[in-house]
Formats: sequence, C-alpha cells, structure tokens
Amino acid sequence: MATYKVGVVGGTGYTGAELVRLLINHPKIDLEIITSRSHAGKPFSDVHPHFTGMAEMELQTIDDLDDYDLDLVFLALPHGVSMDFIKSYDPDKYRVIDLSGDFRLTSAESYRQWYGKEHTAVNFIDEAAFGLPELFRDNIRNATLVANPGCYPTSAILALAPLLKNDLIKPDDITIDSKSGVTGAGATASAKTHFPDVFGNFSAYGLRNHRHTPEIQQALQRYIGGEEPRVIFTPHLLPIDRGILTTTYTKPKKTVSQELVQKTVARFYKKEHFVRIAKNPPQVKYVRGSNYCDVHVTYDERTNTIITVSTIDNLVKGAAGQAIQNMNIMFGLLEHTGLKITPLSP
Amino acid sequence: MATYKVGVVGGTGYTGAELVRLLINHPKIDLEIITSRSHAGKPFSDVHPHFTGMAEMELQTIDDLDDYDLDLVFLALPHGVSMDFIKSYDPDKYRVIDLSGDFRLTSAESYRQWYGKEHTAVNFIDEAAFGLPELFRDNIRNATLVANPGCYPTSAILALAPLLKNDLIKPDDITIDSKSGVTGAGATASAKTHFPDVFGNFSAYGLRNHRHTPEIQQALQRYIGGEEPRVIFTPHLLPIDRGILTTTYTKPKKTVSQELVQKTVARFYKKEHFVRIAKNPPQVKYVRGSNYCDVHVTYDERTNTIITVSTIDNLVKGAAGQAIQNMNIMFGLLEHTGLKITPLSP
Amino acid sequence: MATYKVGVVGGTGYTGAELVRLLINHPKIDLEIITSRSHAGKPFSDVHPHFTGMAEMELQTIDDLDDYDLDLVFLALPHGVSMDFIKSYDPDKYRVIDLSGDFRLTSAESYRQWYGKEHTAVNFIDEAAFGLPELFRDNIRNATLVANPGCYPTSAILALAPLLKNDLIKPDDITIDSKSGVTGAGATASAKTHFPDVFGNFSAYGLRNHRHTPEIQQALQRYIGGEEPRVIFTPHLLPIDRGILTTTYTKPKKTVSQELVQKTVARFYKKEHFVRIAKNPPQVKYVRGSNYCDVHVTYDERTNTIITVSTIDNLVKGAAGQAIQNMNIMFGLLEHTGLKITPLSP
Amino acid sequence: MATYKVGVVGGTGYTGAELVRLLINHPKIDLEIITSRSHAGKPFSDVHPHFTGMAEMELQTIDDLDDYDLDLVFLALPHGVSMDFIKSYDPDKYRVIDLSGDFRLTSAESYRQWYGKEHTAVNFIDEAAFGLPELFRDNIRNATLVANPGCYPTSAILALAPLLKNDLIKPDDITIDSKSGVTGAGATASAKTHFPDVFGNFSAYGLRNHRHTPEIQQALQRYIGGEEPRVIFTPHLLPIDRGILTTTYTKPKKTVSQELVQKTVARFYKKEHFVRIAKNPPQVKYVRGSNYCDVHVTYDERTNTIITVSTIDNLVKGAAGQAIQNMNIMFGLLEHTGLKITPLSP
Repeated sequence: MATYKVGVVGGTGYTGAELVRLLINHPKIDLEIITSRSHAGKPFSDVHPHFTGMAEMELQTIDDLDDYDLDLVFLALPHGVSMDFIKSYDPDKYRVIDLSGDFRLTSAESYRQWYGKEHTAVNFIDEAAFGLPELFRDNIRNATLVANPGCYPTSAILALAPLLKNDLIKPDDITIDSKSGVTGAGATASAKTHFPDVFGNFSAYGLRNHRHTPEIQQALQRYIGGEEPRVIFTPHLLPIDRGILTTTYTKPKKTVSQELVQKTVARFYKKEHFVRIAKNPPQVKYVRGSNYCDVHVTYDERTNTIITVSTIDNLVKGAAGQAIQNMNIMFGLLEHTGLKITPLSP
Repeated sequence: MATYKVGVVGGTGYTGAELVRLLINHPKIDLEIITSRSHAGKPFSDVHPHFTGMAEMELQTIDDLDDYDLDLVFLALPHGVSMDFIKSYDPDKYRVIDLSGDFRLTSAESYRQWYGKEHTAVNFIDEAAFGLPELFRDNIRNATLVANPGCYPTSAILALAPLLKNDLIKPDDITIDSKSGVTGAGATASAKTHFPDVFGNFSAYGLRNHRHTPEIQQALQRYIGGEEPRVIFTPHLLPIDRGILTTTYTKPKKTVSQELVQKTVARFYKKEHFVRIAKNPPQVKYVRGSNYCDVHVTYDERTNTIITVSTIDNLVKGAAGQAIQNMNIMFGLLEHTGLKITPLSP
Repeated sequence: MATYKVGVVGGTGYTGAELVRLLINHPKIDLEIITSRSHAGKPFSDVHPHFTGMAEMELQTIDDLDDYDLDLVFLALPHGVSMDFIKSYDPDKYRVIDLSGDFRLTSAESYRQWYGKEHTAVNFIDEAAFGLPELFRDNIRNATLVANPGCYPTSAILALAPLLKNDLIKPDDITIDSKSGVTGAGATASAKTHFPDVFGNFSAYGLRNHRHTPEIQQALQRYIGGEEPRVIFTPHLLPIDRGILTTTYTKPKKTVSQELVQKTVARFYKKEHFVRIAKNPPQVKYVRGSNYCDVHVTYDERTNTIITVSTIDNLVKGAAGQAIQNMNIMFGLLEHTGLKITPLSP
Repeated sequence: MATYKVGVVGGTGYTGAELVRLLINHPKIDLEIITSRSHAGKPFSDVHPHFTGMAEMELQTIDDLDDYDLDLVFLALPHGVSMDFIKSYDPDKYRVIDLSGDFRLTSAESYRQWYGKEHTAVNFIDEAAFGLPELFRDNIRNATLVANPGCYPTSAILALAPLLKNDLIKPDDITIDSKSGVTGAGATASAKTHFPDVFGNFSAYGLRNHRHTPEIQQALQRYIGGEEPRVIFTPHLLPIDRGILTTTYTKPKKTVSQELVQKTVARFYKKEHFVRIAKNPPQVKYVRGSNYCDVHVTYDERTNTIITVSTIDNLVKGAAGQAIQNMNIMFGLLEHTGLKITPLSP
C-alpha cells in the first residue's frame, strides 16, 4: 500500500500535537519527523504525555528536515515565523501546508495593515492556495503551498458562502459574532489564559481590528468575485478548551423565505463530508474532536434578517483536521481518509 | 432606626434565595416571611444549605402572608403564576415587586403573542411600572406594582438607551447577541441543564422568538417615545453559573465618532451608582455577585457600526439586586443601601 | 474479512452512545441493532445529534433482537433491569456483556446487602466472568456472560492488584479516595446534576456505603485469593464531564522501597496495551476519550505509606471501551482492535 | 466611632485583592495604603478592574508605609519575601499579620527542610502566633506578629483538632486527601495554570513533600501537646477558581460510635461563628466567598475508620478572611465584624 511521507514543523503547540494525533492514525501516511525548537532531543510524548504509548518518536530540529525525503511538510509555527521559513523554501523538495496566518491574505499590503509588519516572503503570497476545501478544492489539488485558514474564518466563511454565492444577502452589511474556546490562543501560558481569570468568565476582545476580519472578507471575495464584502467581526473568549460557535446576521438582497435560505445552504453542501446541516442550532460539543462544521440557517421575517449559527472544533476543522483534509486532496486521496472521527460528546 | 417589613414569595428558586441573601444584610429591612409551596415547614437553610447560620427561618405558605403587616412583597414566582397571584391582590395591603415576566409587556395582546397564553390580570398591566431604575426611577418611586425587568433586557436596554435617547442610532436596525450563564434557566433541573451536556459546551437557542425581544423593544419605546424599535435578539447558553454578556450592533443615524459615542454614554450614566463605563470590553466575572452593569461602547469607522458590550450578574442586576434597588427607591432610601457589594473575582 | 454481528441494548444513555462510537469504527464488527425503550423508531442520531452522518440507524425495541443473528449483545441498562433481561436469557443465542452492576458481585446475598433488593437471576451470578481483562483474561475468553466492571472499581483495582498480588501491602488497611466526572451519574437529568449546582463545585458523597466498595473487595479477592480485602472507599463528584482519578493509601506488609513498588507495578503491566505507567502523577485529561488507565505509584518513607494515583475515562476504560476490550478477547481478536484511540487533550 | 488604620503590602495578587474586598466593607477599619512593587502609581482598580467604583486609591511603594501611622499591616507577599521584610521590622511601629508561609513552622531547621532555604528572620519565629483563631485565640490576641495559616492546613486542622484533642484518634496514622481550586496557586500565570490544560482536568501533585505537611503537624502539636502527629498529605488541583475540600481518614484510639464522633466535633465548635457542622458532606460552593469552614464527620464501623470532610474558600477562611478574623481579635473587636458574608451559591 503506497504511503506518503510527511513532517510536522512545530510539534510543541496544540496545533502540532493535533496534527500528530490525526497523522499517526492515518492509513496512508508515514509521519517521518516532528521538529521543535525548544524541545528537540526529547520524545514527543515527554512534551505531550497523553501520547505515551502512541507517539514516542524523538523531536528533531528544523535542519533535520533535509535528512528525509518528504512529500509534504506541515508548518505549525507562529505567525511571522512561517514566512521566514518559506522565504528560503524550495518548492521542488516538498509541498507545504502552512497553518499560520502568513499566507492567508491576498497582498503584502493587507498583511502589513492587519499584522503590523512587513511580509518577508512576498513572492509566495500569490502562489498560496487558500485551504478551505469546500470552496477552493480545485486550487488546493495542485498547489505547492497551501495557506490553511484561520479557525474563526472557517466557521464564518462556511456559513456565509452559500448565501453570498447565491446572491441572497447584501455583501456590505454582514455582522459576525464569534465565540471561541481558549485553545485558540495557543499552548503558551499568559496572563490572559490564567485559569482562575478565565474560568466562569466570558468577554469580548479584539473589537474592530481582529486579523481574521480581512481573511474572511478576502476569502469570500476570492470565491464569489466582485467587490470585497464588508464584515464586522467580534470575537469572544469562551471558558472552554475547544470549540467555536459563530453567529452571523445578514440582510436579504431580495425577497427570501425560511425555506429558500435553508434549501440553498443544504443544496450547497449536499456532497460534502464535513459540513452537516443542523436542523436545530448546533452545539460546539457535537463537533468536539471531529472535523465537522455544523451549519444552521434561519430567516426572521419580522426583522428581515438571515441568521446563521455554525460550529467547529477550532483545533480540528479550524486547524489540523482541515490541514489533513487539504493534504488528502493534494495527494489525490479520498478527502475523508483518516478523518472519520466521531465527535466526543459528552 | 425605622425599618421596613418585607416578604419573599417563592423562596425555593435562585431568585428567591438571592433576594434573601441581599435582604438579610440590608440595614433598613426586616425580612418577615419567606414562602415556598413545595418546602413550607422546612427551615430556609434546609433548601439552601449555604445559608446555614445566616437564614434559618421556617418557610411558610402563601396564605401566611396575611399574618404579617408588610410594606412590600417580592414575587419570585414562575411566569403565569405571578399574574394569578396579582389577579386577587389588594394594593392597599402592601406594594409588590414582581420578578416574573407577567407585567413587563405593555399589553395583554403582546403577552398572548409572545407568552402563548391569555393574561389573567389585565387590569394591572397598565398599573405596573417597568422596574429599570436608571430609566424609570420616577415611575417606580410611587408605583404599587413594579415589574422587575428580565435579565437579558437589563443588559441590552442599559447599553442601547443612551444611544437611542440621543438619537445616534437607527431604531429599526438593532442586533443583540446575548450570552447567559445557566442560572438564568432557574433552579429546576431539566435535560437542557444536565451538567455533562452543558459543561464545555455552548449553543444558541430561542432564535427569532425569545420573549425578551418585545420586552426590550417596549421598554425602549416607553423611555424614548416614538415608534417601537425593532431588534433582533439571539440568546446563547454559556457554560458558567452566573453572568450575562450582551453585544449589540447598531448603525449611526448621523455622522458619529468614537469620542462622541463614548462621551454620550458616559454622560448618560454619570450619576448612576450601578452602571460603570468600561474602558476595555468588560468581563462577566468583574460583576459577579454585584449589582453592577458594566457598559463599553465603541465605533467602527470602517463598517460604520456602533458596538456595545455590557455585562451583569443575571441573578443580581438582572433580578434580585435590581429588585432591591427598586425597593430602595419605593421606600425613599438611598438607592444603593444594602447593595454596595464588591464583585467576587476571581 | 470475517466480521461479528453485535447489538446494543439501551442506546439512549451515555454508555450506549459510547459503545456505538467505538463499534462503528471497529474493523471487525457489524453493529446490527441498537434498542431504546423510550426512543424506538427514531434515528439514533436524533437522540445523539453528534452522530449525524455517522450513525443514523433507527432505534428498535428489545423484542427486535430476535430478528437478528447476533454473536454478542451489550447490555447498557440500569442496575436491576439487566438482571430481569438475563433471567430469561438463552445462552445459546448470543453471548452477553452486561455493563450494569447486576452480575459484578459474587453472591445474591451481597447484592441484596449493597443494592438493597433481591437478585432476580441468581443462577447466572456464578456464570458471569468479571470483565477486567488485565486480571481475568482467561475467564473472559470463554465466558457466555461477562459483567463489565464499574468505573471506580476499574481505576482502583488496577492500581492495587499488583501490590496485593505481590504481597506488598496489608489487605485490611486500604483507603481509596476517588473523584469522578458527572457522566458517571448517567444521562438522565436530576437535581444532583443540575449545571449551576455542580459547576465550580466539588463534594463527597456515598460515604461508607457506595456499591462499588464490595465490587472492589470481591474482585481483588477473586484475583488474589485468601481473605476479602477490606477497603474504605469515598467517591467525590468532580465538576467535569469525563474522567476518574483515584488516590489510594496503603501500608506495606514488609520493608519496601520506592524502587521496589515502582518496579513491581511496572513489571505487572509490562505487556498490557491499556495500562500505562506514569512517571509523574497522571492527569485525567491525558486519558480523555481513550481506553487507557494511567497508574502512578510512590512510597513515602516518612509515613511508611504507599500511594497510588490512577486515571481513566469513566465512559471508556470505565465502561464502553473495556466492554469492547472484553469483546475482542471473547472473539479471539487482538485485544486493542478498534481501541487505539489517542486521548483528546486538551 | 473609633477606627483602626491598616495597610496591605502586596496588593497585586489574589490574597491582597481579597483583603481589600473585606477591608473596604469593614465598619471599623480605614484602609490607608496598599502597596505593589510592580504597579505602584496606578489606581488599585486598574490592576483589579472589578473594584472600579469601589477601591480606586493609588498603589504605593513599600517605603511609603512609613508615611502612615498604622495600627496593623497585612503582608500579602510571596514566601521568602515576607521574612526579608520582617527581618528589619520594628514591632513598635505596627502589628503584622503575615499571609505567607514564612512564620508558620516552629523552627528554622524545619523551614530549611521543607522550604529548601535558610530562614532570614529567625528571631521572629518564636514571636509569631499561629493565626488559627479557633485554636489559638489567646495567643493571637496579644501577638505582634501573626502567621496566618495556609489554606490546606486550615481545612485539615479544623477537621482533625477536635478528634485529637479528645484523644479519639491515633496521631500517627492520619491520611489527608485535599483538593483545591486554582486560585491557591496565586495570580501569576504559569504553564501549570494555563486554562486549556486545567479545564476539564484533575490531578494530584506535591506527593510526599508538600510544605503544608509540617504546618499541619506542628499546628496540631502546638495545640494538643505531646508528640508531633504524623500525617500523610496529598493535594490535588481542582478545575475551579475557589474552594478547598479536604477528606481525612483516621483510626480510633478507642471504641467510638457515630454519635460520639459527631457530638465531639459539634461540641468543640459550639460557640464558633465560622465553623459550621454539616449534617451531609459539604460542598465547596456552600462556602464560596465567605469565611465559613464546614465540617462533616462520620464513623465507618465496617472498617473502623473516622472520616471527615471539610470545606473552605481558600482565599477567605484560607487566607484573607482568616487574616481579618485575626485582626478583629487583635483589636478586641467582635470576631465576625465585617465578616458576615453569605456564601455566593450558585
């Protein structure tokens, strides 16, 4: 049975560990190398003890990558570090799926504006496919570099794309109210993630200027064409570990009905493995640990508003799972290979 | 020192217990009687063991009310039960603060529409003052019957009133995205509040038809005059015990600025004890256990949207604390008497 | 590829759902039927929406079992209901793994004493193998009826068995302090599992008389022989969904050392797939969703006490996962078939 | 009305903030100064935003203490820093309640052994009264320096003291299994308190060598006399913010009964304000935010074991509340002045 050889760069964080969780159970993949700047030389299971007995290979350095003949490398690196890696990357060596935000925006200028620094691998921006399979499957298939979407954008774009594509909603009046678990902030402790201050708490943050705003707008534009939609995006911090729930409010462009909006979305995702149409407003725990995105849509006649509620596990469909889905597409495998994971609920 | 005699009808639920917590520490109040249909005859602390040593008086029946010469009675009863009590209520006996939803809407017709049943004490609907002190202090002062606002409405109305009153936002395009802890669902266990299914979870509910929608609209109209504003309101269930955070999105009616909207709200609440202007988006834990409502407002020029974020403890400013605040006004006491409680954080 | 046909009786609860989660991903199993008294006729995924797209088969009644030619049936029924089923069970039809407590104790008398009712299928008590594979693999292999152990007992017995077997500790002075997540209380809502009352809370319960006490004692005796050990067992309710952590305190029977106790336990489980020796005290999240039991042991010279800390996911190694492990043994499959699940952390 | 002037040294942490919460509501106290090394110059409410409107005084440096004529100073400093402060402390200036561990042990040698460093203010060790009012009220009254007990020790000692004092249990066979919320680890973020890794998790730590072990032993010996009891103490980390629950297991020294042990403990605390006898095993939420310690005791005849379960809020009776209680004693005030706080539940 032919298998593909892959590596994970950045195995210390949550995203890296989640990639390993999925890769070691993937029937077509050999995970050859995991790197870690801070923990090279230690067994992977020393850093992530829950992998004891399952993944005990030694962490290596990024320079060790060259010792392997890899088909693909996942970059689970912080924003800014990825582009420094890609700057000197030779596309002939292996394909890359980058899980940072460095190649998600469509221009260096936009990157500077929202990330507050110069992009250091400008040449690669246009090369990168935006790795949201349900919308950009064809680009992903042959891409050398895939920019894996952000977690919030995945939940918002999948809810809005069918409505925009079918010209049902006004693109300049989109309100996105998102709520995310704390793993979205990464594995490094900080004052903002100190347990007693988050537990039993809830707050909004990043009002008006969160980096996922342009990512949502540009991805929707890439997919729909025309003007860039204008969205207002407000993230909130949920006192849970995993999960994102996104509520959107939009205005119809023409006369719609409950039936029309629901049929439109259902038809749009009819053939998809990982988008489930939820009759009732979905719960984040119904996707925990899985690659599903659950989407619910409804129309409020009284206020003439279309509301969507969508959920994902931010570490899976919002990061590592989606990356594996992209990899499957790039390798010509069945898209759900290694991803048929039942959500862990309760 | 003159004191007032009060009773609590319905001491078994969370709201009743919270009233008792505040009343036994109130320097001007004698709590004479607590009633409970299901637990009459037992000490109050048998039902709420955390009151051991603090409130051990025996629970009585509702008929026992007549044995006391009371100045005021709090009704901590379910919706529907309150109006049956009020139906035969003699306003000469004592004043009433009703914490149910039965007298919050302005017409029997509206009640039928949103609560799905006939109102049984129609005569009293017009009598009832809407008990949101910051907006209706003058009505409350001399009212015989006060309808204590709902928890969600309190958080939303206090955020929106200054903007509407100053004619800064369009009244027909108001989006309210609210998130509440589970005590808002009451003390009675149900499948929806089963711990394993709520823990680590998050979901939206009551889309398009939650009863707090007309309450928000009608309260705003009562205060501002003119047409009833049109709001879309989506509640979500937070996996915490106490606290509501409400995010609103509105559109300016004229040219505004960050400074203008912030000054408007700050000026509006300048003299209030219980509304704090939050420089940064507030956290629900910063009001836990207290009667505060924290309000943050910002203007997003890019999308021409005004965003507010407001927080309350749903059992205090969203229920029992606000009821005590109303009582203080009705008795001519300083409004914060017995309510100077530091939030319990962390 | 030969497969086995199985059924799940009682698909509404957590244990039933967890069995389905594991069975639909098991490469050697066809799940033919799931029954539910209360929900027969509905799709399984209506009752457990997270299974949408994964397990949508219709729930049937217990009488429908006879329409299938099954190799094995899992009983995920409440205590007392299982024995009524077994009473009229014909061992020639299929083998049974019972996940209730009905066949875990060794005598009808003991059952009466601790469960407070008469046993209704006394004939089968001696037939039942105690389904803890690490200790009773040989009995399980050929058993017709397997009594799947309780969750607390699994965590305690696996920690204590190596020490008792090697005669290192006194069998009459064993203290077991256990802490369990709320799924251990089942899927039915009750006052004790009402979210606001459990959240942020912690308490002990069942002091002195929990039914798992005799189960632990009798299982250890069955395995070790000799007198029934005497254990004191105190369960506590953790405000989490899944997971048990058990701490035990025992006294050495002879001179021991840190090295001796650690080597003894490590050697005992050397060949086991599902018991991991933890260098550091283990965390419940390191086994979440998996079939692992992590065991840590240490010796405190100052007080001459041996301490163990062990963790399991109560729904997996403490229920459904262990049942699958037993099934694998009964069918002669590799014991970890379908059970190589990486823990979901964080 | 005569008042006392006090200062808080170290207002940045949880203990400091909790002291301020209690002191600003204390009717006999003027809080003159709060110091903070890291935040001097900022309003207290900048560091603890929930105090906005309640405590906005500017944080000062430790040198500013001399500008005030203080009756008493609370030291809310880390272990090691307190003794450096006390080293050069002049007892004529003001009395001190130290909330660190620096003066809780009875000898410099013991401090070196368990804290791993030399004590720098050895002269003061004998001066310090152990600030557990229920046992050492008389020493506290006239003390110049009070060592406020640790949180775990408070919960354990209060449960064990009545049994030991009445000679009911063996002092050399005491097992203490404690569980604490995360605020016990302080306000500074660390890898161990990163939200996603603690949420939904549970673990033991500090096996065999936690510093509270000798504190418990020595306090009990000081109170009972005779040999130092020998206790085994295992702390666990609860995924909640506040609260400790301690379970102890001891062996009777003579023939006892359920009635005897319960009466003994009840009689012991008959006149105490802050120790409540719990008929049922207590819950940590029943003491949240309050100065109560709830104690439950039972006797298991089958195993001849006495079990106690006790609960406190680690930041109140386990730290700041107990410190205020000590202060009240030192000032000759009623012991519960400013401490009649109803627990916040749910």
